[in-house]
Amino acid sequence: MNYEHYFKHCIETKSSFLCTGIDPDPEKLPDGFSRDVQGIYEFVHEIIQVTADLTPAYKFNLAFFELWGWKGLQILEKLLSEVPGDILLLADAKRGDIGNSSKFYAKALLEELPFHSATVSPYLGSDSIRPFIENENKGAFVLCVTSNESGRELQEHGGEKPLYLKTAEIVETLNTKKNLGLVMGATKPEQLLDVRRQFPELPFLIPGVGSQGGGVDTALAVCRENGFGLINVSRGILYPSEGTFPNNVRELTENYNYLFSNKDNR
Amino acid sequence: MNYEHYFKHCIETKSSFLCTGIDPDPEKLPDGFSRDVQGIYEFVHEIIQVTADLTPAYKFNLAFFELWGWKGLQILEKLLSEVPGDILLLADAKRGDIGNSSKFYAKALLEELPFHSATVSPYLGSDSIRPFIENENKGAFVLCVTSNESGRELQEHGGEKPLYLKTAEIVETLNTKKNLGLVMGATKPEQLLDVRRQFPELPFLIPGVGSQGGGVDTALAVCRENGFGLINVSRGILYPSEGTFPNNVRELTENYNYLFSNKDNR
Repeated sequence: MNYEHYFKHCIETKSSFLCTGIDPDPEKLPDGFSRDVQGIYEFVHEIIQVTADLTPAYKFNLAFFELWGWKGLQILEKLLSEVPGDILLLADAKRGDIGNSSKFYAKALLEELPFHSATVSPYLGSDSIRPFIENENKGAFVLCVTSNESGRELQEHGGEKPLYLKTAEIVETLNTKKNLGLVMGATKPEQLLDVRRQFPELPFLIPGVGSQGGGVDTALAVCRENGFGLINVSRGILYPSEGTFPNNVRELTENYNYLFSNKDNR
Repeated sequence: MNYEHYFKHCIETKSSFLCTGIDPDPEKLPDGFSRDVQGIYEFVHEIIQVTADLTPAYKFNLAFFELWGWKGLQILEKLLSEVPGDILLLADAKRGDIGNSSKFYAKALLEELPFHSATVSPYLGSDSIRPFIENENKGAFVLCVTSNESGRELQEHGGEKPLYLKTAEIVETLNTKKNLGLVMGATKPEQLLDVRRQFPELPFLIPGVGSQGGGVDTALAVCRENGFGLINVSRGILYPSEGTFPNNVRELTENYNYLFSNKDNR
């Protein structure tokens, strides 16, 4: 199965656009987990146990693993090997470089590690994106409109034609193997709708709902339009404000799986 | 010594703006080194032995280490511990994220690892830069004008005021602790001069001379104007076309140390 088919297969299998974000913050671990690399491993191991049958995708945030040096990468490798099939594995790494550097970043994530996809930062242009999409079985999401307020500083630069539209155009042009998408923050619904209107086929990876304040309705609408996208929840699933771990995590995942249903069934 | 003073001290001590780029490509190792993580370690170990007294800075390209998974990070840690003092250690990681993610990337590179500085990608705005410059003893170089041709796609977007000038403005505004600089490719000398004229105090990290075709004269001129900058050579030092390793590497480093002298002494 190529990337596009596998991606859609994962969504269909779980009937949902939910992406569970793995951001293991040592300050936020539930009681009983040590605040070290072993505690992080055990915490994420539990998360996978109680969410894998409900989530079509995991987004591993590499910052939270690199924090622990090579030992963090070692547990990341182990955790990835524990994820069952029918799940898109996404490396939220925001890499972006030129020539061999970009090639090696892609190789590290998509060949040496078993990720299917990675986030890529477009500041260096097409060079930084191409190595991630050469293999039709792997893919990438390029940062376009990010969920943070200061993302506007560069992304809206350019007056009538803001930079984010230029980014989307580049991605559309490069997307001959249908293995590219855009990161589009839910906190900016007007831009989300604008880019969807101009680029109806691209899949979006949508962070920023829940804790970051982005609304669910627009995010869900743009995913349902082409049946192809992911809405990410990290803190909203990993750190429940009530209940007992890990049952409370499972309950939240069930809720989000249903809320982000890929069918307009309510 | 804060970052600015340490940076200038390194340049003064070696009388040069030379930055030696550590891009250990397994395809290009000299005879006698195995094409695996152990061979990479031994190669870089030798490079450090014969160049440390001549170079004010090493730029470690993280892609070439991440390629080897956690074992690559393990040798990176070991190699960094072998570098003597009076050398600026720069992580060429091109990281850029928001909130805790950016904080943890900064912590991973500047606290857990002994880097003094890192390259940062500005697509997500000020949020992505701030965590790298909170400590006045550490710093960062933000991507502004990159050496690759496709860098123009976004960096020149915006008509009369191209994006790269907006990036430079943001960096100038954030630079209250004098620990920020810009990545400015030598392959675009007009933009190099333009940004230098508008931002006379910022240090530049200048890649792209030699193999990538950028001229030395402009790079050297903009560094000498404020006495504060680095001109990077990676392939031009690591992979000599003639001579015997490692003596040929040392000879090239001597040449570049002299060519990039911080005094106009010829």
